[in-house]
Amino acid sequence: MSRVTELLGSKYPIIQGAMGVICNPELVAAVSEAGGFGLLATAFAVDPEILRNQVKSTKALTNRPFGANLFVMNPLTEKFAQVLAEEGVKCVTVSGGSPKALIPMLHHMGIKVIVVVPTVDVARGAEAAGADAIVAEGAESGGVQGLKVSSTMVLVPLVVDAVNLPVIAAGGIGDSRGYRAAFALGAEGVQAGTRFIATKECVAHANYKATIMESKETGTGLVDMGRFRIRALRTPLVERMLKGEEATDRAFAGEAIEASWLEGDLEAGGLPSGEVAGLIHAVPSVGEVIKEMVGDGNS
Amino acid sequence: MSRVTELLGSKYPIIQGAMGVICNPELVAAVSEAGGFGLLATAFAVDPEILRNQVKSTKALTNRPFGANLFVMNPLTEKFAQVLAEEGVKCVTVSGGSPKALIPMLHHMGIKVIVVVPTVDVARGAEAAGADAIVAEGAESGGVQGLKVSSTMVLVPLVVDAVNLPVIAAGGIGDSRGYRAAFALGAEGVQAGTRFIATKECVAHANYKATIMESKETGTGLVDMGRFRIRALRTPLVERMLKGEEATDRAFAGEAIEASWLEGDLEAGGLPSGEVAGLIHAVPSVGEVIKEMVGDGNS
Repeated sequence: MSRVTELLGSKYPIIQGAMGVICNPELVAAVSEAGGFGLLATAFAVDPEILRNQVKSTKALTNRPFGANLFVMNPLTEKFAQVLAEEGVKCVTVSGGSPKALIPMLHHMGIKVIVVVPTVDVARGAEAAGADAIVAEGAESGGVQGLKVSSTMVLVPLVVDAVNLPVIAAGGIGDSRGYRAAFALGAEGVQAGTRFIATKECVAHANYKATIMESKETGTGLVDMGRFRIRALRTPLVERMLKGEEATDRAFAGEAIEASWLEGDLEAGGLPSGEVAGLIHAVPSVGEVIKEMVGDGNS
Repeated sequence: MSRVTELLGSKYPIIQGAMGVICNPELVAAVSEAGGFGLLATAFAVDPEILRNQVKSTKALTNRPFGANLFVMNPLTEKFAQVLAEEGVKCVTVSGGSPKALIPMLHHMGIKVIVVVPTVDVARGAEAAGADAIVAEGAESGGVQGLKVSSTMVLVPLVVDAVNLPVIAAGGIGDSRGYRAAFALGAEGVQAGTRFIATKECVAHANYKATIMESKETGTGLVDMGRFRIRALRTPLVERMLKGEEATDRAFAGEAIEASWLEGDLEAGGLPSGEVAGLIHAVPSVGEVIKEMVGDGNS
């Protein structure tokens, strides 16, 4: 048992990254059933009772522990935390802002806190604020990222040097090779996002999964959102955004997400993805993904 | 002995990347003496006889094999190859364009050819053109890069899958952790550039080395050069270029390079560096770098 599996209560130190509405209970439960640690997402959530129902649905599918991601900038985050505590969730990840205010509250509720960080400085701040572990997320990751970031190869060993907490690597990890590389860099676990979108259990539309499968390693781009950027697949819509020919402000929000991620309309919104899409050529079950990741590379 | 050490004739599968005028014979010889494979640079070279003198100077310092980088776009590249052949160099790397025309010529001269590639497609093309090995260079690397690239974590396993040749990982590698991670990803060797600038034997000015040492992992930026980009340290000059407040066209050429890289005038030109600068905190000898890299991480 490692520090990370002890913290998560899982068999393997593998977290399924939070990815909004496509973190359906079936996906989260499948990850935990396969020995990983599934996360429900709340970044875009608008109703604590919907989260409660998601937790209940996930509990109906697995007896193993799972968690949720709390997004600091969401004004309902404290309410979401209350629901998670009431429903018995024991470990969460926190991203999207300073965890300083949230950590004491979550600890008081008996919930362990893993903070997702993009830089060494933020990792140090999270440790000082009382975090229980760190997810160090490299620039090759999908979704939201800052303007000054660095790759997993560089970020992970630096965060390992900077903090005493266990470090979980994220960014660019899609198979057993990335898993082993993360440990070589000093990480004690991994978080994978894109790899779990392209699984049978994920509710993402077949068009989303197919776009990941067809993507080359150069098939994502960074969409400029002003104060941050979003790494997304180079669909025709996103290519136009990258050229400045299309507005970006609604492409990754509310209705656009529903229409594109869940209903498959690739002109309605952008599809976040890590560069690791290039490594993904099939849509296996979650169990197959995790088995290959922790195996010898030939399984 | 691995496929890569056999190809290079070195003790360890570690190549010192080509970095223009700061690949002085003392550095190249020190790398080869320490068991790696040093490279002279020719990308900006203007006189085959200067290269001949560099080769002779290096040979005077080591009996171990070393090589050179040939830059396809330099119009003198065939002349440089002729000099290398005459002087007994047995292995080169090729970058900066298609290696198709060069490979048969180099093979005819008895010189093995390692092609530096930024993408899977280019790797496939290099194998088809007869390359003997591939350097897969991730986006975290310093210096020139294309507009569509991917990180070492993603690129290396994909190139390993795409070709039968030995793959050497470059980008983000500065210590034993990066070295081991590269092998976990399927590489059979590594190429490091920035790490060798910050060594005692490198002729780079102390200001260049100090700027690397002081850099955080977010301390480099991508300077837009039109058809390509250059990853460089965020000196005040480069910060202005990143904001579009300063012309970029002369900052990485001729006189600017001499004045900044060799004479330490950080307002005269930009200093290329990989993100790995964040991991570099000292200026050891080349031998110490290589010993730590191949060791157990505690040496």
